Amino acid sequence: MTTPRIPVGIIGASGYSGLELTRLLAAHPHAELRFVASDRWGGERVRDRAGVSGPAGDLLYGPAERAAELSDDCQTVFLATPAEASLKLVPELARDDRLIIDLSGGYRLQRSEGYPLYYGFSHPQPERLRAARFGLPELFRSRLAGARLVANPGCYATSAILPLAPLLRAGLLADEPLVIDAASGTTGAGRKLSEEFSFGEVADDFRAYRILRHQHTPEIVETLAHACGREVRLTFTAHLLPVRRGILTTVYARLAPGIAADQPRRVLCEAYAGEPFVEIARSAEAVGLKSVVGTNRCQIGVAAGDHPSDPGRIVLVSAIDNLVKGAAGQAVQNFNLQHGFDETTGLADLHPAYP
Amino acid sequence: MTTPRIPVGIIGASGYSGLELTRLLAAHPHAELRFVASDRWGGERVRDRAGVSGPAGDLLYGPAERAAELSDDCQTVFLATPAEASLKLVPELARDDRLIIDLSGGYRLQRSEGYPLYYGFSHPQPERLRAARFGLPELFRSRLAGARLVANPGCYATSAILPLAPLLRAGLLADEPLVIDAASGTTGAGRKLSEEFSFGEVADDFRAYRILRHQHTPEIVETLAHACGREVRLTFTAHLLPVRRGILTTVYARLAPGIAADQPRRVLCEAYAGEPFVEIARSAEAVGLKSVVGTNRCQIGVAAGDHPSDPGRIVLVSAIDNLVKGAAGQAVQNFNLQHGFDETTGLADLHPAYP
Amino acid sequence: MTTPRIPVGIIGASGYSGLELTRLLAAHPHAELRFVASDRWGGERVRDRAGVSGPAGDLLYGPAERAAELSDDCQTVFLATPAEASLKLVPELARDDRLIIDLSGGYRLQRSEGYPLYYGFSHPQPERLRAARFGLPELFRSRLAGARLVANPGCYATSAILPLAPLLRAGLLADEPLVIDAASGTTGAGRKLSEEFSFGEVADDFRAYRILRHQHTPEIVETLAHACGREVRLTFTAHLLPVRRGILTTVYARLAPGIAADQPRRVLCEAYAGEPFVEIARSAEAVGLKSVVGTNRCQIGVAAGDHPSDPGRIVLVSAIDNLVKGAAGQAVQNFNLQHGFDETTGLADLHPAYP
Amino acid sequence: MTTPRIPVGIIGASGYSGLELTRLLAAHPHAELRFVASDRWGGERVRDRAGVSGPAGDLLYGPAERAAELSDDCQTVFLATPAEASLKLVPELARDDRLIIDLSGGYRLQRSEGYPLYYGFSHPQPERLRAARFGLPELFRSRLAGARLVANPGCYATSAILPLAPLLRAGLLADEPLVIDAASGTTGAGRKLSEEFSFGEVADDFRAYRILRHQHTPEIVETLAHACGREVRLTFTAHLLPVRRGILTTVYARLAPGIAADQPRRVLCEAYAGEPFVEIARSAEAVGLKSVVGTNRCQIGVAAGDHPSDPGRIVLVSAIDNLVKGAAGQAVQNFNLQHGFDETTGLADLHPAYP
Repeated sequence: MTTPRIPVGIIGASGYSGLELTRLLAAHPHAELRFVASDRWGGERVRDRAGVSGPAGDLLYGPAERAAELSDDCQTVFLATPAEASLKLVPELARDDRLIIDLSGGYRLQRSEGYPLYYGFSHPQPERLRAARFGLPELFRSRLAGARLVANPGCYATSAILPLAPLLRAGLLADEPLVIDAASGTTGAGRKLSEEFSFGEVADDFRAYRILRHQHTPEIVETLAHACGREVRLTFTAHLLPVRRGILTTVYARLAPGIAADQPRRVLCEAYAGEPFVEIARSAEAVGLKSVVGTNRCQIGVAAGDHPSDPGRIVLVSAIDNLVKGAAGQAVQNFNLQHGFDETTGLADLHPAYP
Repeated sequence: MTTPRIPVGIIGASGYSGLELTRLLAAHPHAELRFVASDRWGGERVRDRAGVSGPAGDLLYGPAERAAELSDDCQTVFLATPAEASLKLVPELARDDRLIIDLSGGYRLQRSEGYPLYYGFSHPQPERLRAARFGLPELFRSRLAGARLVANPGCYATSAILPLAPLLRAGLLADEPLVIDAASGTTGAGRKLSEEFSFGEVADDFRAYRILRHQHTPEIVETLAHACGREVRLTFTAHLLPVRRGILTTVYARLAPGIAADQPRRVLCEAYAGEPFVEIARSAEAVGLKSVVGTNRCQIGVAAGDHPSDPGRIVLVSAIDNLVKGAAGQAVQNFNLQHGFDETTGLADLHPAYP
Repeated sequence: MTTPRIPVGIIGASGYSGLELTRLLAAHPHAELRFVASDRWGGERVRDRAGVSGPAGDLLYGPAERAAELSDDCQTVFLATPAEASLKLVPELARDDRLIIDLSGGYRLQRSEGYPLYYGFSHPQPERLRAARFGLPELFRSRLAGARLVANPGCYATSAILPLAPLLRAGLLADEPLVIDAASGTTGAGRKLSEEFSFGEVADDFRAYRILRHQHTPEIVETLAHACGREVRLTFTAHLLPVRRGILTTVYARLAPGIAADQPRRVLCEAYAGEPFVEIARSAEAVGLKSVVGTNRCQIGVAAGDHPSDPGRIVLVSAIDNLVKGAAGQAVQNFNLQHGFDETTGLADLHPAYP
Repeated sequence: MTTPRIPVGIIGASGYSGLELTRLLAAHPHAELRFVASDRWGGERVRDRAGVSGPAGDLLYGPAERAAELSDDCQTVFLATPAEASLKLVPELARDDRLIIDLSGGYRLQRSEGYPLYYGFSHPQPERLRAARFGLPELFRSRLAGARLVANPGCYATSAILPLAPLLRAGLLADEPLVIDAASGTTGAGRKLSEEFSFGEVADDFRAYRILRHQHTPEIVETLAHACGREVRLTFTAHLLPVRRGILTTVYARLAPGIAADQPRRVLCEAYAGEPFVEIARSAEAVGLKSVVGTNRCQIGVAAGDHPSDPGRIVLVSAIDNLVKGAAGQAVQNFNLQHGFDETTGLADLHPAYP
């Protein structure tokens, strides 16, 4: 007897995350892709755009504005849309017997006051916001059970929270502001038509953007505060790398008084011992994009020790694929979790795209 | 009447810095390249390796071991050699009527105890070390006059010191440890034959290296301490970018109590008002590799303000070409300074290599 | 009832093709990886180098010199070794009940006189050479049945033969010398430790190599001659692209008298109608690396028409991933074919690595 | 006594060629940049966009529509505009005492029938077309003297004509169709705002474009026919490389009967013996982008010999920087030539941008 497949739909299927999600769900043994919406590619065949074979490849991209109607039989709907679009779509799509996994930031912040500051709008649905669950399975697996609206974490947020949360929770870090310095490939910015993202501008360049005002900041702050039960101060900076995929995040913290330099790595190893998608590297220098791009993994490394120029400093380095563990792969992991499948289903055979 | 040209020599001419220096000096109106040493390219013609025309192109690469003898008539000798080689060459080459500009780290630290820790050797010439001058003209122009041994600053150090020194000197920054997070193109690591630097390994990757133990750390610490007259604690991290040239450095500090958010940019503008090679950008986001690669410029940007997640934070971003302002161009600037030429001679017409 | 898995081994597992093969076989539902040999990574765990999970990840890399002994229970052995190594290993490993798939050029040429000219050695086993089968399933499926030694085609050869063979066979091309101009990512050259393949040399560069003497030339000549039953003259040129993976091949031929411009595309569509891994693109301009890298596909496009500057000219463009359809994926396809599995097993869910 | 500077203007200064031209002319000892027009950057300062210092940096970009009026005192006007714009501007700007150097294709073809076919318009000024001179100094220096309208050659055309013309003129090549296969960095396509040229699309990709209909085809055909006094048939294909700058062109021809394999290289060496910007490399494999990008050079290599698979074949490889020798540098060379300056003025000190 074979497991029946869950009928699923994707709205926003032509963005980079939506495209990755299309590919992952087309190959997922327990999902049946029934509806894919994209205004950009409306009427085209999924095979021709996503390069997938099988029945999913035969689907045609449908119009986003008729999503509620056309996804009627989908038990899970994935939104790979901008936050503003998700805010409109979620109320239309919400049903008791349906799981919505939203890849935007529209429902990620528990405190709605972050929205005007970082997203430029007041959140119109504060109750729904409180009901949404932040979909980071490694930290919140138990709280995610039965959720009807999962806010899939931001890519930078995933890469910053995973190395920090266990150390904060265990009280290993001093109560000092954290510095989170991250760099992402261009697909992290989405498929925008602007000179800023043309090959001639991005190739061979490197720069910081949205300094002190990046919208992933508040979800990192909230989640870490939740993890350790106290306020957390931090500065997060994003940089644009001349590569297509991958995020590397370097975190600067300080060991709490009396904590030995080798303790943080031990705590991370224990915290993530059973986790199929988190790997504690042998060193912080061993962490790099090419070990994770193409996979749903987060690789984490730790450096600490008697550094004469800044005693007590600890440096954490983490790497993920922004489109997989940072978006579509994590969404599939959340899908698996909610439907009772092994969390690695459809994700285990992904291997590094490199060399 | 034309100015006579200064006879100059380069030892270590086949490394990336040595190659850049060869090109700059070949086109310099007041230098006459007389001797270029490279064991690697011994016997080959400079034209064929460096692509330069004119008389410098006709030179043959000579053997490094006969450098002292063959550079006898050179009034200035540039060492683009590893620190260990410079330590051997400087005593052989030193003369009262000769300027030595050493691009290695061999004579950069005033306190010799940094050598065992960061370079892996005890410095054999502590007196000569004290006599050497750290060749960052924008900060130490007056102290450089008459020097016979100039220690040309490290590339990362140049990019970190220029934005920080005026702010520390003016007392604008709190006495908190600094975080200096930098990324460099692969030429910063020199021309090494290792799998680690093969195209297949570096392309599309990004990683940190020598965390908490990079050898440019002590020269940053010493120089900043010198600038502000007190000890400075800091952590410096280097990353490897998949580009050939350029360094972007992101610095995290905190405003001292009572300092307004717009003061630091004003102080930087004043400090570098007459400097031809330092540009204060309109914003920190405007700073990027492509504005500086190919030139001797350092571009600096500032972000500060009422950032709710970490009040008082100030972020500085700077960019240089690691082979020009970070090595060969700064060496030419030092050469100009010592010989009384305009500091921009041979450097003014360099323009960004990018569109 | 589940199909039993075929025990398999890989020799030369640390090269780029061997690594890709390790990943494909680790995820293959009907293969059980029992032995992986690599002198370079001897004693390390497959998980740590190949990033694969499951039982294959637990294997340790073993020594190549004990391959015959340690692969004793492997029903299929894959050689991802240089031609010279394959010539030594095949006689040691050959058995009536074992399939050997050799990814090197050691057994590809039917006429042994090509070896001294293009490979630099006289072939020591002319009889075994004649018994080997050229493993291009789309053209030689019937001749491959029951083979014990399959010579897996070269990457450039695959990309050149697939677009040309059906047209030559159908008599659509004039009897004029062909021009085959191809460009490959650096992994096509294997994992070599040479300055030539360092990031600083390859990035932003493009050049031709082994002009008029590339070793894939004779296998293209022989295979095309075999396809059309007459001698074929051609010039093949390889170029090195600053990317990791992918081959794009542009072929210049001439329509035979009386052949209409739209006939070639029709013939190609028919020839490859049932082939899961060959796609005839809507135009030659639509063919590109990013549609195929990460998959086992070959994409082919045709341009022909009334070009006033050269009437009768036809231009074919094809693209493959040099490590998949050009090496490891095609080897798995041959494995599937010989063991009676669907040819797409373990290959169908590969999707483009891009964006 | 110093030579007076020629007042010059640039229209279309914000395109990649116009930007490069701005930089070259700003540093040119005998040119005085008086007017730069760009609708895109209107009102901005040249320093801020082009990164140039000195008086040229103080200019403001002016409006293209007032070009005729604002460039009134410019003795030479450079048009870095699309062909359609040049066709409008040239009649407005033409004067007996003024040199116009047009970088577009608007006046390159001697036979006006090429325009409808390759450019999509009928040429409105056939007389002016006949009066224009094709500005390839190495071949047409004597015919260029006194020209008032110089059609600066296309980038691909320059790279294809330079290796072929001397061989055709000397009768070394058989009367067979030529194949010209070329690849260019993205700046060759100009600064277009289209998804096609976004980083995510171009990076790691390689594809052919405008197959059998590229607009540089007719200028290559005409110029080569002119060089050898007979019709020339050829196919030209352009490819898009994932780099910013540089063109590599691989040409396939056949030796005329009785011509020895080493003759072509000798003839090329003689033809270009006194040319400062053409270098005959020691081999065709030695030719690459990184030797020429950043300079006004064309590097040419030859491979010919007893190639068993295609006897008589000769392969030529050439490389240029598409923005320098393929556009702005060649325009400066033409400027120097017309004004009686040494042709290398302002171009001699350019050195390769690599490593």
